Amino acid sequence: MIKVILLGSGNVATHLFQAFSKANGVEVVKVFSRTVSKDFPETLQTSDYKEIKAADVYIICVSDSAISSVSSQLSFENRLVVHTSGSTDINVLDSKNRKGVFYPLQTFTKNKSVDFSQIPICIETEVPSDFEIIEKLAKSVSNSVYLINSNQRKALHVSAVFVCNFTNHLYTIGNTICEENNIPFEILQPLIEETAEKIKSLLPNEAQTGPAVRNDQKTIEKHIDFLTNENQKEIYKILTKSIQNGEKL
Amino acid sequence: MIKVILLGSGNVATHLFQAFSKANGVEVVKVFSRTVSKDFPETLQTSDYKEIKAADVYIICVSDSAISSVSSQLSFENRLVVHTSGSTDINVLDSKNRKGVFYPLQTFTKNKSVDFSQIPICIETEVPSDFEIIEKLAKSVSNSVYLINSNQRKALHVSAVFVCNFTNHLYTIGNTICEENNIPFEILQPLIEETAEKIKSLLPNEAQTGPAVRNDQKTIEKHIDFLTNENQKEIYKILTKSIQNGEKL
Repeated sequence: MIKVILLGSGNVATHLFQAFSKANGVEVVKVFSRTVSKDFPETLQTSDYKEIKAADVYIICVSDSAISSVSSQLSFENRLVVHTSGSTDINVLDSKNRKGVFYPLQTFTKNKSVDFSQIPICIETEVPSDFEIIEKLAKSVSNSVYLINSNQRKALHVSAVFVCNFTNHLYTIGNTICEENNIPFEILQPLIEETAEKIKSLLPNEAQTGPAVRNDQKTIEKHIDFLTNENQKEIYKILTKSIQNGEKL
Repeated sequence: MIKVILLGSGNVATHLFQAFSKANGVEVVKVFSRTVSKDFPETLQTSDYKEIKAADVYIICVSDSAISSVSSQLSFENRLVVHTSGSTDINVLDSKNRKGVFYPLQTFTKNKSVDFSQIPICIETEVPSDFEIIEKLAKSVSNSVYLINSNQRKALHVSAVFVCNFTNHLYTIGNTICEENNIPFEILQPLIEETAEKIKSLLPNEAQTGPAVRNDQKTIEKHIDFLTNENQKEIYKILTKSIQNGEKL
């Protein structure tokens, strides 16, 4: 049985707690939370660092800027302490404990359940002998576990911003244009899903369609004329140019 | 039985032919193609405008710039002629025939089959009495049919460029960054799918996550420093700014 203590009570901690609760061979023995949270059994919660007892893995699930300080306040030494951040180096963790990373690559929204088994977990450990336990922990909740070092994780996090956060913003722009023209946004949902689905079998640059890639300057100009919002116009132009230049510049 | 003649032999014509072939109450009686295409039965094909005989609906599936000229070359009058273009006004069609639009909103790739029943079809007719037949034709292949006028269709097409073509380009950038760092791009696939899936239950601006929306300037700066490609840097900055400004400017 791998004994786990979660430090933090936000989205990531909540989803991890739910996943570990269903997993075999893992037990969450404590959740450190500054305030009492409804998302965890009350008996498991503590806000006192002294009550953080023995466990095999301590998982810090707090905002990136707080990771270092939380890891420093732990009152024990030479145990395995990991963080869950995509954009934070492993060395941000205090050196008095053995360091590791347990980064589930997904966009978590409170109250929206996710199928953890499909979420890639990127793991890294400072000490090679810790790798086995972190891998076992990751495999207890997910079918896809990757060894990713801190440099690679940084790259992955930037990529995730492009394919998830920025993509969602393009959906917002599409939604705004639809609303302004009394078009139900749901019309675009099958197209959005097919676009995401297509790149399972094609490389994204092979899957590229639309006026930019076929150099259809007439349609591009019609679209730019159509847009009245200067911000949307600017985004349209820069992404069109990037597609036409083959993403170079 | 609705008799249909397809004019054109590209992606849209091929997918429409396959869908109509499986549909009840529709028969494709001729396919006009300048060169013989393997995608249609040889006996149905012609490259001679004079061989285009009687039908209930003529569907022009050619590039946007050729629609007008193809519609002018038809040697008959007062029949129902529609185009399939998202970005083209209904009035581009020659006035000697009754005009209409039959626009399937999807990204078609040759050799990649699509489930036509899930594809929204946006229809428009010049003469109200033609609406019934076009609606019947659309419903024979799709479960989602929308009445969309030329102005709305223009807006929809611009939206589709944002949510499909530009989104795919962001996938390309993500893929490039992964390749440069020896990360398998497949790690990002579940995130990409969840991002597309999420907006079925949330509005896109409610679903926004990431450093830009939480004003995490430290992470944003780390990401901009990480990127070495000036084009990627520029796209990162402009989309971050757009998220932070709530898409206004």
